[in-house]
Amino acid sequence: MTDSAYRDDRAHVFHSWSAQRALTPTVLAGGEGSWFWDGEGRRYLDFSSQLVNLNLGHQHPRVVAAIQEQAAKLCTVAPTFANDARSEAARLIAEVAPGDLSHVFFTNGGTEAVEHALRMARLTTGRHKILSAYRSYHGATAGAITLTGDPRRWGSEPSIPGVVRFFGPYPYRSAFHATTVREECDRALEHLEQVFTLEGPHTVAAVILETVVGTNGILVPPDGYLAGVRDLCDRYGALLICDEVMSGFGRCGEWFAADRWGVVPDLITFAKGVNSGYVPLGGVVLGPRVYEAFAERPYPGGLTYSGHPLACAAAVATIGAMRDEGVLERVRDLGSTLIGPRLAEIAARHPSVGDVRGLGFFWAIELVRDRDTREMLVPYNAAGADAAPMAELVAACKERGLWPFTHFNRVHVVPPCVTSEADLDTGLDILDEVLTLADRHYTGKEA
Amino acid sequence: MTDSAYRDDRAHVFHSWSAQRALTPTVLAGGEGSWFWDGEGRRYLDFSSQLVNLNLGHQHPRVVAAIQEQAAKLCTVAPTFANDARSEAARLIAEVAPGDLSHVFFTNGGTEAVEHALRMARLTTGRHKILSAYRSYHGATAGAITLTGDPRRWGSEPSIPGVVRFFGPYPYRSAFHATTVREECDRALEHLEQVFTLEGPHTVAAVILETVVGTNGILVPPDGYLAGVRDLCDRYGALLICDEVMSGFGRCGEWFAADRWGVVPDLITFAKGVNSGYVPLGGVVLGPRVYEAFAERPYPGGLTYSGHPLACAAAVATIGAMRDEGVLERVRDLGSTLIGPRLAEIAARHPSVGDVRGLGFFWAIELVRDRDTREMLVPYNAAGADAAPMAELVAACKERGLWPFTHFNRVHVVPPCVTSEADLDTGLDILDEVLTLADRHYTGKEA
Repeated sequence: MTDSAYRDDRAHVFHSWSAQRALTPTVLAGGEGSWFWDGEGRRYLDFSSQLVNLNLGHQHPRVVAAIQEQAAKLCTVAPTFANDARSEAARLIAEVAPGDLSHVFFTNGGTEAVEHALRMARLTTGRHKILSAYRSYHGATAGAITLTGDPRRWGSEPSIPGVVRFFGPYPYRSAFHATTVREECDRALEHLEQVFTLEGPHTVAAVILETVVGTNGILVPPDGYLAGVRDLCDRYGALLICDEVMSGFGRCGEWFAADRWGVVPDLITFAKGVNSGYVPLGGVVLGPRVYEAFAERPYPGGLTYSGHPLACAAAVATIGAMRDEGVLERVRDLGSTLIGPRLAEIAARHPSVGDVRGLGFFWAIELVRDRDTREMLVPYNAAGADAAPMAELVAACKERGLWPFTHFNRVHVVPPCVTSEADLDTGLDILDEVLTLADRHYTGKEA
Repeated sequence: MTDSAYRDDRAHVFHSWSAQRALTPTVLAGGEGSWFWDGEGRRYLDFSSQLVNLNLGHQHPRVVAAIQEQAAKLCTVAPTFANDARSEAARLIAEVAPGDLSHVFFTNGGTEAVEHALRMARLTTGRHKILSAYRSYHGATAGAITLTGDPRRWGSEPSIPGVVRFFGPYPYRSAFHATTVREECDRALEHLEQVFTLEGPHTVAAVILETVVGTNGILVPPDGYLAGVRDLCDRYGALLICDEVMSGFGRCGEWFAADRWGVVPDLITFAKGVNSGYVPLGGVVLGPRVYEAFAERPYPGGLTYSGHPLACAAAVATIGAMRDEGVLERVRDLGSTLIGPRLAEIAARHPSVGDVRGLGFFWAIELVRDRDTREMLVPYNAAGADAAPMAELVAACKERGLWPFTHFNRVHVVPPCVTSEADLDTGLDILDEVLTLADRHYTGKEA
C-alpha cells in the first residue's frame, strides 16, 4: 500500500508550492493525537500540526464519530437549503465569536473566506482599496494572493487592483526604528494612519491583518495595536477584517485571537482549527454592518459546498470537544508556563537564537548569525544552497523523530493543542539539541 | 430538530447569492437517491441534483462507506506528504482523463480549480491574456469570477486584468447571424480567431470554456467547434482549458464532455460529480506541457487541504461505482432514448418552449413569449416582478413534489445520473403539466 501510494503520488499528484520532479514526499500512513507514522512505521512527533490546522490532533474520536454519523445521515446539501448540521455550526461559531458578530458565511477553506470578506467589505462600504500588511499570508486565489504580503504572491502578479500595503509591528525588526515595544506600537499606528491619509481615507474599504501573524513569523501585536487599528477604521469608516485562519480556534488559547485584546472586528475569516481540517471548511463571521448591507440586496458570491454538512458536523464536534476538554485554558496555561519558559531557556543557551516570541501553542524561534546585527541565519526567501543551514535543522529534527515547521530563518513551535506535557518536553529537547547546528553558523560575538 | 435548524439558519447562516432577510429556506432533512425530504416529511424528486453536483444521488452506500472508513483511518494530511487515498484518486482520475493528461492538482472545489488553471496557464506560456466566453460561469473568487461571463461577475468588477471575452456558439440565439448549426460553428471559430488576431496571439495564454456550457443554458457545442478551438490554440501557442466542473463525471455520459468530441485540452478543471459533492473536492488535470513548466521551478500556488483524504476516498468510491454500475452508458442511453425524445414531445405541445437541447442528463428547456421573435419569457437577468413567470413555474413544480433547476428563461433537466426511468417520467410529466403556465404568457402565433 505504501509503495503504491508513493509510486502513484510521483506519477499522478501535482503538489502545492513545489517544483514537481525532485519531490520525495514522506508517505503519511496514519496518525493519532500529536503523532503520525510513515509507511515503514517510523513515528514522528508533529510540531507543525500538519499545516497548523490540526489543533485537536489526529483522529480525535469525537470528531471522527461526528463525521461518520453525519455521513450516514446526509453527506451533502445545496447552499440554498437549511440544514441542521450547518445551522448548529453557525450558531456555535456565532456563540464563540466576539461582540455582535452573529452570522456565518461558510466556505471550503481560508483563501475563499478571505475572497468573500474582501468582496463584502468593498460592497458594504462602496469603497475600493484594501490595506494589507507586508509579512502576511491570506491565501492563493487571485484576491487572497494579492492581499498576501510575502513572496508567495510574486508568481501571481499583477493581480487585482486596489490593494495597498502597510507595515505592521515587528519589534525585533522594526520598520520604524523603534527601540521599545511601546514605541513600535505607537509608530506602527502612526504609519497606518499616514497610509490612510495619503491613500485618501474615503477610498479605503478595509484593513485586513492576521490578528497574530502566522507563517510570516508569529508576530504577536503589542498591547494596544489592534485597538488602535480598530479606532483608525472607525474614524475613517473602514472595516476591520481579522484573518484568524491560523490564529483562531484554540491556537492562541482563545476562540479568536482578537479576544485576547477585547477587539471586535467587522469580519473574521477562519478555517483550519474550526474542525482541525478533518473536512475542508472555512468561513467568514460577520457583524451587523455587513449583514445589513446584504439584508435587502443580493450578496454577489457563493459556492456549491457552502455550509457542507460533513464539514459543519466536524466543526460542531470540535467546538464541543474544545469546551468539554478545556482546550483553550490548557493552551493558555501551557503556553505561558511550559513552552514560553523553555524557549527562553533555549534562547539563553544558543547564541543563534535571536528572538523567541509567541503565545498559546503558537511560537517562533528566530535564528540569526549575529545578535547585534540581527543578520538572518538564511536570507529572506532563501532557497537551495542559501537555505542549507535551515535544511540541516529540518533533517536533524526528522532524524530524531520530530516533524518541525520552519519558514525562512525561523523554527515555529506549533504542535497540536492536545499535545501532552511530556511530548512538549520531548519536542523542545530535540529542538534544543539540534539548534547546536545553527550555532555553528554564528559569526557574532557570543551573547 | 427541524424547527431549530430553520431558526438557527435564519439567525446565523449567511447564504450564497442572496438578499438575506427575506429568505425562507426549505429544511433539507434527508435524502436517498434522487429524492429528498424536508422537516415535515414532504418528499421532492430532485431534478436539480442539488447544484448539479449530485450525480450519484443522495447517500450512495459505497461512497458513504468509503467516507466512514477513511474517517476511521485518517481524516486529514498536509499537502506535502503522500497519502494512499490521494494517490489512488489521482491515478484513477488520470486513467479516465483524455489523452496524455496524467497529473492532478487537487483543490476544494471548482472555483479554486479555475484559479489554479489560470495561474498555471499564464506561467506555462509566459503570456498574460485569457480568452473567456460570454454566457459562462467559472466560480466566485477574484480570478474565477472575472472569467465568468454572466451577471454574477458584475458585483466583483473591476477585477483581475487581462481577461478578454468572446462569444461561443449558441445556434438558437446566434451572435453571428448564422442560420444553420454548421454555419454557427464556422462563424464562432472565425470570431474566436479574430479575437486572437486583434488581441495579439502572442499575448494569449489560454482559452477557457465550459466544454458544454452549464448554468448559462446547456449550450452543447456543434460538432467541430471544440476541435476548431483546439486547432486555434495550437496554432497560436495558447493552452486550452476545459472547465468540466459541471459537465464532467457522468453528467454528459462521459468522464469528461471533451471525450465526446475526442478533444484533448491542456488543462481540465473538475469538481461536483467527481464525488457528487459528498466531501468538498475539485481539481485540475494537467498534461505534460504544464507539468514540465513546473518540473524544475516551483509552482507558486497551493492550499492546506489539497488532496484531502476524505474527499479523495469519496472520489475513488465514486469512480468505482460509476464503472461498476455502468453509469456513463446509462446516461448516454437514457439521454438519447428517454429524456431527449420526451422533451421533443413537450416542445411540440407547448408553444412557450422555444428550444430544447442537451445530451446525457444535461438538458435545457428555453421558454419564449414568441417563437418567431424568440423573445425570452423573462428578460436576461430578470429579478422580482420581471421574473414572476419563472417563479410561478418553480412554485408549481414544488407543489407537485418536483425540485426544479431554473435560470433566466430556462428550466434545466439535470437529475442525478442514477434516477430511475419511472422517476424521469414522473418529473417530465410534472414539467409537461406546469409548462401550461408558461404558455399563458405566450404572445406569438401558435406554433
